[in-house]
Amino acid sequence: MKKADIGIYGLGVMGRNLALNFNDHEFGVSVYNRNLPGEEDLIAAFSSGEAAGTPIRTFNEVESFVASLERPRKILLMVKAGPPVDAVIDQLTPLLDEEDILIDGGNTHYSDTNRRLETLSQRHLRYIGMGVSGGEEGARHGPSLMPGGNAEAWPPVQPLLESIAAPSPEGGSCCAWMGPQSAGHFVKMVHNGIEYAIMQLIAECYQLMRNGLNMENQAIAHTFESWDSGLLNSYLLEITTRIFNTEDESGSLVLDHILDRAGQKGTGRWTALTALELGVPLPLITESVFARSISSFKDLRRQASDTLRFEAGGEPNAISTTSLREALLGGQLVAFAEGFWLLKTANEEFDWDIPFSEVARTWSGGCIIRSALLQPIATSFRENPDLPHLLLAPAFREILNAVQGGWRSTARFGVERGIPVPATTAALSHYDNLSTKRLPANLIQAQRDYFGAHRYERLDRPGGTFFHTDWTGGHKG
Amino acid sequence: MKKADIGIYGLGVMGRNLALNFNDHEFGVSVYNRNLPGEEDLIAAFSSGEAAGTPIRTFNEVESFVASLERPRKILLMVKAGPPVDAVIDQLTPLLDEEDILIDGGNTHYSDTNRRLETLSQRHLRYIGMGVSGGEEGARHGPSLMPGGNAEAWPPVQPLLESIAAPSPEGGSCCAWMGPQSAGHFVKMVHNGIEYAIMQLIAECYQLMRNGLNMENQAIAHTFESWDSGLLNSYLLEITTRIFNTEDESGSLVLDHILDRAGQKGTGRWTALTALELGVPLPLITESVFARSISSFKDLRRQASDTLRFEAGGEPNAISTTSLREALLGGQLVAFAEGFWLLKTANEEFDWDIPFSEVARTWSGGCIIRSALLQPIATSFRENPDLPHLLLAPAFREILNAVQGGWRSTARFGVERGIPVPATTAALSHYDNLSTKRLPANLIQAQRDYFGAHRYERLDRPGGTFFHTDWTGGHKG
Repeated sequence: MKKADIGIYGLGVMGRNLALNFNDHEFGVSVYNRNLPGEEDLIAAFSSGEAAGTPIRTFNEVESFVASLERPRKILLMVKAGPPVDAVIDQLTPLLDEEDILIDGGNTHYSDTNRRLETLSQRHLRYIGMGVSGGEEGARHGPSLMPGGNAEAWPPVQPLLESIAAPSPEGGSCCAWMGPQSAGHFVKMVHNGIEYAIMQLIAECYQLMRNGLNMENQAIAHTFESWDSGLLNSYLLEITTRIFNTEDESGSLVLDHILDRAGQKGTGRWTALTALELGVPLPLITESVFARSISSFKDLRRQASDTLRFEAGGEPNAISTTSLREALLGGQLVAFAEGFWLLKTANEEFDWDIPFSEVARTWSGGCIIRSALLQPIATSFRENPDLPHLLLAPAFREILNAVQGGWRSTARFGVERGIPVPATTAALSHYDNLSTKRLPANLIQAQRDYFGAHRYERLDRPGGTFFHTDWTGGHKG
Repeated sequence: MKKADIGIYGLGVMGRNLALNFNDHEFGVSVYNRNLPGEEDLIAAFSSGEAAGTPIRTFNEVESFVASLERPRKILLMVKAGPPVDAVIDQLTPLLDEEDILIDGGNTHYSDTNRRLETLSQRHLRYIGMGVSGGEEGARHGPSLMPGGNAEAWPPVQPLLESIAAPSPEGGSCCAWMGPQSAGHFVKMVHNGIEYAIMQLIAECYQLMRNGLNMENQAIAHTFESWDSGLLNSYLLEITTRIFNTEDESGSLVLDHILDRAGQKGTGRWTALTALELGVPLPLITESVFARSISSFKDLRRQASDTLRFEAGGEPNAISTTSLREALLGGQLVAFAEGFWLLKTANEEFDWDIPFSEVARTWSGGCIIRSALLQPIATSFRENPDLPHLLLAPAFREILNAVQGGWRSTARFGVERGIPVPATTAALSHYDNLSTKRLPANLIQAQRDYFGAHRYERLDRPGGTFFHTDWTGGHKG
């Protein structure tokens, strides 16, 4: 019997859908799942369910699963990130031969991927840490794939992965080699950080329309729908519009019944942690993580809303939804800029070789953050791979000028009305900090020198020369 | 010869000043420093310098230093945090007896203190991780001390530490036992996070006065000086005023020549990292860390300020310095609230027993963040140790109502003029998020359920029951 082109270990919904997707593209697929007593037999369910009538081969024993694969074997692990990945690797490695390839398609922290790469390379096994985005739907019909790791493993898997990935509006498919080590999982982590930011920006527009402009759901739905074109055309606005059109059995909007406590699975938080560790300022992404976190303190908020009173700060200004749209566009640009700034820093820090324009192309289809904005972003990095900050790209100059008025009005509107806009204001502060030639950090340096003798540099002297002042002695007051 | 009451290992400026401080309080003090070839002989310098004529005993050999101490020996380590602390511990432990006490007075990360406590308790040695604030001046004349660790070590060191600490306006001295394990170093870390926030808030007021109100330095100096009373009376405003009165030889303000690139030694960053790890939203402190970080990209900012243009968002509003003062007061309350929220969370997570009102009392003198605000904070926690969030304390209700208008106007003013106010807006968003009964997180939950089947809870059903909607099927549009 002809050996299979790829094996998939793990038959959760993502693993099943990827298996069906590979099968659609005429690859031979073997699948396996570790069935534990008392748990549902996912192999049998898949075999008699979605895989019935397909040539997908299901296995109950890991040995025969491994033996069914063409060498070098390619096994995609679709298991829960963390210790389960180590357990599966330990189970598989005795059965593998040199040059066989393991691909971890989970949301693995990049440091784990680095560790596993090191261990497996000692056994002459090849390892890829791959970001997979697009949810269930993407896995089934075309995800965005971000592989990285052992470069020797790329050519054998490239045709398989490129076939199942979503087509990119930029040409090719939404799959590209991200670089050595854990570059792939790192890029996926940053993708999710950007996702947190865009979702929070949209949520703030919703709150401003609902509580600030007192708009009905239907008007909000139409507004979001009208925004979903041009540069703002994006998956997240598309599903937002659908959410605003989804009723329950009683005919009321499902959205209105959902508890306002946002969950998180940790990848946004990892992005913020990594930014702090690497010293890259990502205020928008981090505020978006904190906004989810503060929403989860529902009881505390209930208590606080009974206690704390709103007081206005002068006569409030009027605003139109056009301004909100501009704030969303400006904010999304900052979200992408923050993501690429972190990638750029990691790239230097870890000595990777991330192809920034390819990252943008890979994100332009299949994934949650796909957006028309990614096309000019890809072009900008193609034209200038050394672009120090995305907001400096010539492609965005006019846009930033055009949206800025509405962006400022939106932030002001939230601040005036007591409607929390942490992401909108953090994005604007990012822009304003970046474009301010002289920040008040000279005062912070003076304070640090005052109480801690930390010394300071001077504007009129070469950098690297440090000065200390006796602040208590020389004052005239 | 009478044995010494305390030994100090490390003769940097902090170690020297603490030695002089203990000596002032009539304790017998032995000091030692590891002299490395090629480095300055700090022992000789101290002996013939500041310590000349005092009964402080200096030692060139660690054995005789240790032998000179009364048992149980108490040795305060004032060496650079990190590996040097481990090296000193390794050097000292063979010379110590059971129940001897080591105190690490450096800015040590709390996880290191936990590790060392564990190792040393196996050798029956006692260990204290102690936060020391107040800079050189505080060390010399009265610091704020935050010890924690082996409870058995507290009674023997208590009289020594309480004697040298600053007096507290709340009564007693600025020194209290913070709890087991690394509670002391954790409290110090949070102190520094709050310090970052207050410094950034002051810096934003400076920028708004300089660039928004076009005020001269002298007017800014007078404004800061006038604020430094009542609830805003604080060390950081006091030194800010002095900084605005310090000229160099040429008669110009030193401040005007300082490069606007803020440094950081890491404790603020640790606070933000810990907040993310423990899931506590600390947007103000984290934005303050990021603001320093973005200031350090001076070349990028120079480039961006040439490229990016400011566009107004409608007619700007006027503002007075009174509003700025209100924003600073509101922001400082949030800074303290964030710090105590992190302490409360760590307290639960690590099963400590941090005395919150004592923390506030300890911070009310001697340290960098000492402020009149700490008196009502101490009282609030004394009245209600289970206060879920500092902003809910009755003592601050009227203040929050009174400052809110000016706080909002200040945030609006920065947003309108393109003057970055990341800390001011983050503090306000914290307040507004906290006091909003219904946040737009229901939309985020709907999106997560849409693309990832993450499910959601409903407002009209008990918590812990999860729902999933087929968003593509049921829509009416």
